[in-house]
Amino acid sequence: MKRMKRIAIQGEYGSFHDIAAHLYFANEQIQLTCCATFEDVFAEVRGDSAAIAMLAIENTIAGSLLHNYDLLRQSGTMVVGEQRLHIQHCICCLPDDDWSTIVEVHSHPVALMQCRSFLSNHPNIKAVEADDTAGSAAYIVENQCHGCAAICSADAARLYGLKILEDSIEDNKHNFTRFLVACHPQKAALLRSLAEVDKSSIVFSLPHEEGSLSKVLTILSFYDINLTKIQSLPVIGHEWEYLFYVDLTFDNFTRYRQAIDAITPLVKSIKILGEYKEN
Amino acid sequence: MKRMKRIAIQGEYGSFHDIAAHLYFANEQIQLTCCATFEDVFAEVRGDSAAIAMLAIENTIAGSLLHNYDLLRQSGTMVVGEQRLHIQHCICCLPDDDWSTIVEVHSHPVALMQCRSFLSNHPNIKAVEADDTAGSAAYIVENQCHGCAAICSADAARLYGLKILEDSIEDNKHNFTRFLVACHPQKAALLRSLAEVDKSSIVFSLPHEEGSLSKVLTILSFYDINLTKIQSLPVIGHEWEYLFYVDLTFDNFTRYRQAIDAITPLVKSIKILGEYKEN
Repeated sequence: MKRMKRIAIQGEYGSFHDIAAHLYFANEQIQLTCCATFEDVFAEVRGDSAAIAMLAIENTIAGSLLHNYDLLRQSGTMVVGEQRLHIQHCICCLPDDDWSTIVEVHSHPVALMQCRSFLSNHPNIKAVEADDTAGSAAYIVENQCHGCAAICSADAARLYGLKILEDSIEDNKHNFTRFLVACHPQKAALLRSLAEVDKSSIVFSLPHEEGSLSKVLTILSFYDINLTKIQSLPVIGHEWEYLFYVDLTFDNFTRYRQAIDAITPLVKSIKILGEYKEN
Repeated sequence: MKRMKRIAIQGEYGSFHDIAAHLYFANEQIQLTCCATFEDVFAEVRGDSAAIAMLAIENTIAGSLLHNYDLLRQSGTMVVGEQRLHIQHCICCLPDDDWSTIVEVHSHPVALMQCRSFLSNHPNIKAVEADDTAGSAAYIVENQCHGCAAICSADAARLYGLKILEDSIEDNKHNFTRFLVACHPQKAALLRSLAEVDKSSIVFSLPHEEGSLSKVLTILSFYDINLTKIQSLPVIGHEWEYLFYVDLTFDNFTRYRQAIDAITPLVKSIKILGEYKEN
């Protein structure tokens, strides 16, 4: 019998991480470990090499989650998959509350920001920061917070038995989040087959020389490797050093590995965050 | 007599935009127009071609402000300068309040996020989202909100006569924000001399072809142009299209302009956001 997979997520049951985890592992039985922070998510994987981390890495509106890139790079885990999720927020409250009784709305700061126009159209409702979207819904139910609403997914509202006052209140309807699935490197082979791999996430730093980035990208292009994302980040505390986070796609895995070998002598440092199947 | 410059900022007197504006225009008399949103900042410049916009564009912790990139690209203004600012937050309250009486802390969601560790060490203080850091301080004074603290700069706390409970409460001490100065294109020549220009911000899109980015970067390197930032962004609603926001530095302005001419036939679209002196 296949053992149930344990997935560590940031947030509560019903959070977007929960939804993304169930989408990614759609045909399997999974068990969630809900963590307060992304640091805790990686601590779970360090503590139990069979645990799998699921973490948001970028959003079409909010951009890259730089802190998660940082944690991922230093975690010693390996990325084995990705999942895209369309983010839709609703506002919900206890069944006997209504628009006329709501004075506060609780949610994660990013969710509050993504509903800015909605909130500015309801100036009498005070926005209060919480650790989690679904956690705000859970909090309202547990503490029977009358007069309080939460911003979360409609799934979370239903899970906690809250009444949806309005759905799809996000400002921008093209709101997608990309999640990465990461695990202990020794477990990677169990979670994805190299034969299916057509995407890779790498991070490298460059010598402080003119044209060093163009050399690396030219070599990648000679090896028929596509870039789907590139982002430079200053190394905090080192004024002139940059890290480049790059996502690559390719048809031929051997060619891709040869390309990595070919760029390695030209970079200062390089780390493969993971090789996986594009979603 | 030189006319006083009018600077449109997002936020209140004492906000980080205010501090950045006074740093950038250190030797000049300026008059601030405080706007609620970045949209309003650009509307000010559209309404009065002599007005100058000052806007945050990236932060070492929070990353790029993608929405501001978007607004800037579509604003019809031209970037004429940049200003870096070390961001330090304090927590402050009315003079007769104290740690024992504080139950809420108000601030901008990004400031709240930058003080996460501090806030989690004070679980009995509820974090409440506001439009602005300095605005939260102003609000507390105007409404004599006993039991409420604000997270803002120490300058703002002093400006509004609040008591600083603790200074430098930000999680990461290497917290820098980069601001851009933008104005009507016809006024650009009044605000910076082309002889001093050694930096440029451009945005381009590429044909969906392998190696198109490496070609562009290779040409830039042949012309001795340095990259200090590169960020790809998916075009919202167009799955396979990307915009590349790139900052360039150079010694020779003519060479730089020739490089732009040389890459133009290879890109799908290109826009120079502005040419200015590196800060």
